[in-house]
Amino acid sequence: MKNCKWYIEQTSDDEIILHSLKEIIYTEKSPYQRIEIIRSGNFGRCLLLDGKMQSAEADEFIYHEALVHPIMLLSETSDKVLIAGGGEGATLREVLKYPVKEVVMVELDEVVIKVSKKYLPEWNNGAFDDPRVKLVIDDARSYIEKTKDYFDVIIIDLPEPAEGGPAYLLYTKEFYEKVKEALTEKGMMVTQSASASVNNLRVFVSVVSTLKQVFPYVRPYITYVPSFFAPWSFVLASKKINPDECESRIKEKLNSIGETLKFYDTDAHKSMFCLPKHIKKAFEKGGIIISDNSPISFY
Amino acid sequence: MKNCKWYIEQTSDDEIILHSLKEIIYTEKSPYQRIEIIRSGNFGRCLLLDGKMQSAEADEFIYHEALVHPIMLLSETSDKVLIAGGGEGATLREVLKYPVKEVVMVELDEVVIKVSKKYLPEWNNGAFDDPRVKLVIDDARSYIEKTKDYFDVIIIDLPEPAEGGPAYLLYTKEFYEKVKEALTEKGMMVTQSASASVNNLRVFVSVVSTLKQVFPYVRPYITYVPSFFAPWSFVLASKKINPDECESRIKEKLNSIGETLKFYDTDAHKSMFCLPKHIKKAFEKGGIIISDNSPISFY
Amino acid sequence: MKNCKWYIEQTSDDEIILHSLKEIIYTEKSPYQRIEIIRSGNFGRCLLLDGKMQSAEADEFIYHEALVHPIMLLSETSDKVLIAGGGEGATLREVLKYPVKEVVMVELDEVVIKVSKKYLPEWNNGAFDDPRVKLVIDDARSYIEKTKDYFDVIIIDLPEPAEGGPAYLLYTKEFYEKVKEALTEKGMMVTQSASASVNNLRVFVSVVSTLKQVFPYVRPYITYVPSFFAPWSFVLASKKINPDECESRIKEKLNSIGETLKFYDTDAHKSMFCLPKHIKKAFEKGGIIISDNSPISFY
Amino acid sequence: MKNCKWYIEQTSDDEIILHSLKEIIYTEKSPYQRIEIIRSGNFGRCLLLDGKMQSAEADEFIYHEALVHPIMLLSETSDKVLIAGGGEGATLREVLKYPVKEVVMVELDEVVIKVSKKYLPEWNNGAFDDPRVKLVIDDARSYIEKTKDYFDVIIIDLPEPAEGGPAYLLYTKEFYEKVKEALTEKGMMVTQSASASVNNLRVFVSVVSTLKQVFPYVRPYITYVPSFFAPWSFVLASKKINPDECESRIKEKLNSIGETLKFYDTDAHKSMFCLPKHIKKAFEKGGIIISDNSPISFY
Repeated sequence: MKNCKWYIEQTSDDEIILHSLKEIIYTEKSPYQRIEIIRSGNFGRCLLLDGKMQSAEADEFIYHEALVHPIMLLSETSDKVLIAGGGEGATLREVLKYPVKEVVMVELDEVVIKVSKKYLPEWNNGAFDDPRVKLVIDDARSYIEKTKDYFDVIIIDLPEPAEGGPAYLLYTKEFYEKVKEALTEKGMMVTQSASASVNNLRVFVSVVSTLKQVFPYVRPYITYVPSFFAPWSFVLASKKINPDECESRIKEKLNSIGETLKFYDTDAHKSMFCLPKHIKKAFEKGGIIISDNSPISFY
Repeated sequence: MKNCKWYIEQTSDDEIILHSLKEIIYTEKSPYQRIEIIRSGNFGRCLLLDGKMQSAEADEFIYHEALVHPIMLLSETSDKVLIAGGGEGATLREVLKYPVKEVVMVELDEVVIKVSKKYLPEWNNGAFDDPRVKLVIDDARSYIEKTKDYFDVIIIDLPEPAEGGPAYLLYTKEFYEKVKEALTEKGMMVTQSASASVNNLRVFVSVVSTLKQVFPYVRPYITYVPSFFAPWSFVLASKKINPDECESRIKEKLNSIGETLKFYDTDAHKSMFCLPKHIKKAFEKGGIIISDNSPISFY
Repeated sequence: MKNCKWYIEQTSDDEIILHSLKEIIYTEKSPYQRIEIIRSGNFGRCLLLDGKMQSAEADEFIYHEALVHPIMLLSETSDKVLIAGGGEGATLREVLKYPVKEVVMVELDEVVIKVSKKYLPEWNNGAFDDPRVKLVIDDARSYIEKTKDYFDVIIIDLPEPAEGGPAYLLYTKEFYEKVKEALTEKGMMVTQSASASVNNLRVFVSVVSTLKQVFPYVRPYITYVPSFFAPWSFVLASKKINPDECESRIKEKLNSIGETLKFYDTDAHKSMFCLPKHIKKAFEKGGIIISDNSPISFY
Repeated sequence: MKNCKWYIEQTSDDEIILHSLKEIIYTEKSPYQRIEIIRSGNFGRCLLLDGKMQSAEADEFIYHEALVHPIMLLSETSDKVLIAGGGEGATLREVLKYPVKEVVMVELDEVVIKVSKKYLPEWNNGAFDDPRVKLVIDDARSYIEKTKDYFDVIIIDLPEPAEGGPAYLLYTKEFYEKVKEALTEKGMMVTQSASASVNNLRVFVSVVSTLKQVFPYVRPYITYVPSFFAPWSFVLASKKINPDECESRIKEKLNSIGETLKFYDTDAHKSMFCLPKHIKKAFEKGGIIISDNSPISFY
């Protein structure tokens, strides 16, 4: 073994992944979670929350561009954007590439923000200092339930729903109903929705089934995030506008920001939204409806 | 730890993957390699060669359909097909879904075939008994250099090129030139070409660069194979026909066999061939030209 | 990695041990625990309970001889012996080398006995068929509380006290008082008492402290059991007879059975009972008194 | 998994040990080896050479006291002492507790010394500044072959003989003959001699067999070093004096330094030199004679 120091992530009862560990940059226990920043041999600096990989220097651009650009490009207006979670600031960084008027970012754990600013500066790249940004330290569900504002775009960038974890009730029908209420009439939301692996589609399919109970237009898509060791899923949902009818505007809107992107272009968009047969089959079967009374738990 | 028995695969100096191990079905050392069949918690039965995952019950359909169907559907004729490697018989199984006249399968290690027939019957599904099949136990390179036959389609389904391993010289320019000679005028070839992970594009890009030295039309594509824990790459190369002009025939030809497929359909095709920006960038930069004198080695 | 199949044992939050796994001989879930028999590269066949190593072909002789022979040789009489636990039958095998009149073995899980007879025959070596043996399937504590018999020797051969595990209440002061009541006047007991590692003396020291509350003579000793990856501890306790005054009889009694032993002889005895300075210091400090209300839990 | 950062040591083809990794204190590649200092959850600060555990804060006292005190106490005179290896300085620290006149320490890699002084100060505890110490940066074999000095005590504190490693030729008959020549008439030597595990006695037994070809008195002994996860062996060899006849002086000599010791006392001495039956049996069988032409290699 050339390396003797490793970061070990148990991703399920049946799967453990080891990354060579070059440096322990930072460790802290915040009131909400254990926060660690390490440097791995394959992925460079990585942010870990409770031992789970959140984003990595080498490929955070894939995850964050995949999360942000489809909704920002498909949405007619994006004057007012809400980000639920997204502590590293990279989702914010991508959103700010557009001429938005206001972005409210609601993050539970301000230690994550502090640490990301210090140790992962390219992740946020000054985003937190942009005058269009309003940072709120709060539970995203609680904020959305209370807010009287309306948003054109709501981006949900939270960890998977782990039992007892802070995001447990942010994947339920009740929550999505509140999200819908906080959207403008033509508003859209998007959420990450866990693995799209052939043997682990449960969360993804259930998020789709649940969103279909709340929104008329639900568009799942997937891409591959190497540091997650799995194809990764996202779901976009729209209150009134059919996203398929908005594809024409992508190309034009992309003109002004395309230069700044590393992963996303119209090919990548097509690739993400064209789902293979077995995943479409899984949607036909459907998943469970996730509710506050019977929430779903990822490993 | 709920499981105490694990299959461990070191995929690089910086990465180790553990799969829970439910059963050791078979182990043998053939003259060429250590052959093992295990049952893992996530992927069911798995074929391992020298400790490396080759294919798994849960998702071999993705790999084999992705390897076989694009070329079979794009190719004008596929009367005569050559498979280099493909010991489990699953590539053969997919090829035989088409009205081919003859399939020559050249596999080095007949123990792999024997074992696959016995322990992985759905992988081959009687394919070895099909009268259209001619099985040759030989080194694929040696066979292709000697053969006087011409093939419409050549499918290269071999392990990655590991130093000193049996497939070391089956990814070189010299080999691809021999493949080209063995193709009919309108013939096409396809090969798997290792990981397409953001930090591990070296082999993929170099196979593309090398094939471009030999073939006028080279079309890389990727999909995700969960049991490989990485997006996986393939390259299709054509001697004379531009594959892009053949896409129209996919839909029609697919009619007759579509029912039998689990992963591949026209959406999956589109998804695979639409490459994200950073991979296209990597092709622009280019890789090394792999030759017999300077072959490439995967971990 | 030459081996790709491993048995993984997490022995503490800070320590994990991997053994190469050559064969999965048997797996079953009994009403009490997960029972597995594997063959490891270093230790041959191993019995695992709930994923924890219990005994191994290569060195079970060390553990079982260390547990049984000191007490059997120091005790004046050993007509009637009680074994609490000891499912594999190896403790029984060692006891039966002496001219005992009756051995009662109380084992909770009869599946362990069945499986050991079948797959680990040298462990028990026909011991269960010896007419002097009375096998009782019961909880050892419950049996000892109920029994009206008196025993010259009581040997406690149970797994470590794991929270909620079957041996949780078999290391407490209340239990040892019942053991004392079940001993004849000159009787002695012995128990295994977990690791004696420099950083993990907690259970060992506490068992010693607890036994000292109950018995006038308490003699801890240690040896090394390679498959446990730690020096291992035992405690012998005597109701009335000072064990130190009995050492003279060891040599003579050993004459008749010495031939059958592989680990134990007078040198081994001396080595085990001569404790290094830091362990004696740890006893001076003392541990907690383990009681039914505040039992101790090993990892 | 409560911990996600681990130090992994493969100790043989069949065995891997993981220690939780709390801090990476230092890493460097010297001309001879990769040097790392980490803090593990179980053993505190640890010195690793080429990924292998050399000594650990929690139990280095056991290894170093076991190596140094038996020879220092049994030897009639110890005016002049040679230490081969021992880079951390802990062997030196123990030797300096005696009224020696000169200690020559020959260490190949001065980076190990520099690093140990800085990060493991209690290991050496000012020993390198003692005016009685003469530090030589050289290969120990080469030094011993060249020296014209004679030593009362030679302590060999080197890593196991790994193929191609720096200590490969420091366990051979030819080397031991040079050691003998460098000893005074009544001189003694001691060496660590690898694992004494039941299934891994090969190196230990062969060192004993080899020393018996060179020295009239050879006394193997063992103790347990928890951070090595194995019982550990040492061999003491004497040129003319029978060590067994020197035991009487231990107690008296120990008076003056006993207070400073944490592991070693007369009990520990007895425990170490009383070997169990199976190890004595292994010596009867004997090992190979290690020579420059056929050296031995540990994993």
